[in-house]
Amino acid sequence: MNDEKSRKERFKKQIEFLIEIDKVKSIFRRTRIFNNKRYENDAEHGWHMSLMALILSEYSNDKIDICKVIKMALIHDLVEIDVGDTFLYADNQTDKNINERKCAERIFGLLPKDQYKEIMELWVEFEKKETSEAKFAGSMDRLGPIMQNFYDNGHAWNKHNITSDKILKVNSQIQKGSDELWEYAKSLIEKAIEKGDLKKADG
Amino acid sequence: MNDEKSRKERFKKQIEFLIEIDKVKSIFRRTRIFNNKRYENDAEHGWHMSLMALILSEYSNDKIDICKVIKMALIHDLVEIDVGDTFLYADNQTDKNINERKCAERIFGLLPKDQYKEIMELWVEFEKKETSEAKFAGSMDRLGPIMQNFYDNGHAWNKHNITSDKILKVNSQIQKGSDELWEYAKSLIEKAIEKGDLKKADG
Repeated sequence: MNDEKSRKERFKKQIEFLIEIDKVKSIFRRTRIFNNKRYENDAEHGWHMSLMALILSEYSNDKIDICKVIKMALIHDLVEIDVGDTFLYADNQTDKNINERKCAERIFGLLPKDQYKEIMELWVEFEKKETSEAKFAGSMDRLGPIMQNFYDNGHAWNKHNITSDKILKVNSQIQKGSDELWEYAKSLIEKAIEKGDLKKADG
Repeated sequence: MNDEKSRKERFKKQIEFLIEIDKVKSIFRRTRIFNNKRYENDAEHGWHMSLMALILSEYSNDKIDICKVIKMALIHDLVEIDVGDTFLYADNQTDKNINERKCAERIFGLLPKDQYKEIMELWVEFEKKETSEAKFAGSMDRLGPIMQNFYDNGHAWNKHNITSDKILKVNSQIQKGSDELWEYAKSLIEKAIEKGDLKKADG
């Protein structure tokens, strides 16, 4: 393939990817936006999570490359284009992981090889939650919905019958990214119980 | 003010800002998303523009700090919370600039002083279009809607009676950020005319 043709092929792939990812704007989540009673989509969530990371980076337990965290926030939910949003409190998290991997291969696979590698590595790193950046990005991913539910009178928690013990358990990974933000998250959960917006453990 | 109180004040301001900016999710633009006939909002646009910048950075005329470009993309439309979206082809661009400056002061002013300064400087830099990063971010901001209109049979162009000469004039600043992407944008405009989706200059 000559250089000109190969450049055109490369550009075509990049544009195809950029149009395909638009589909996350139609993947809706379980939580509603703060200033309106409508559900949030994955693109809006990626945008908000990026800005949360930027503004709250000083609370990270470890020193972080904020640029990497933001990139993770921007791409982390693209895999939901094929599989939809899996509720954080759903039981089928293993199926979710297998399906999301397939979707990652398809969607990131639209890109030229070097960019496929870059974005796939970023997503795998985010999913594994081992590095400081992945841990902090994970904290942002979890803190957002807790705030949204708190300011929405526990809407998604109540709709899906989620009690405080489960919320505390599933979201304790916020602490891996930030002790201080985990304290904040716990304080919101406690206040939600006090306000009558959230049920304590069953039984 | 003691340290503890001052830390709490700081955190409160950051959270207030993060909730306030949620409002851009209800600011709708003139262009529709690629995979659905509904209008795009500013949060989705900020997310998509960030990913366009990330994937297309190699086409920048100048060497750029991609992290800075992404930060600009994420915050550039927050000023529309108070003033709404001003159509690119509208005549009242001066009023727009005065009003957006006021809104920037109010919204970025919710943040602690150091962060107010950081975000305000980023926004002013983006608006001025003098640095390499601002020029490239500007190219992304303009290229997105041209692509959206092209794949939507010229929807916003036709609805608002915009002819190709005006599109070429208003969007020529894409070239300041990227000669190659300006060539691409022009090719889409030409194809739209050929397809009958866009009118040439009046008269």
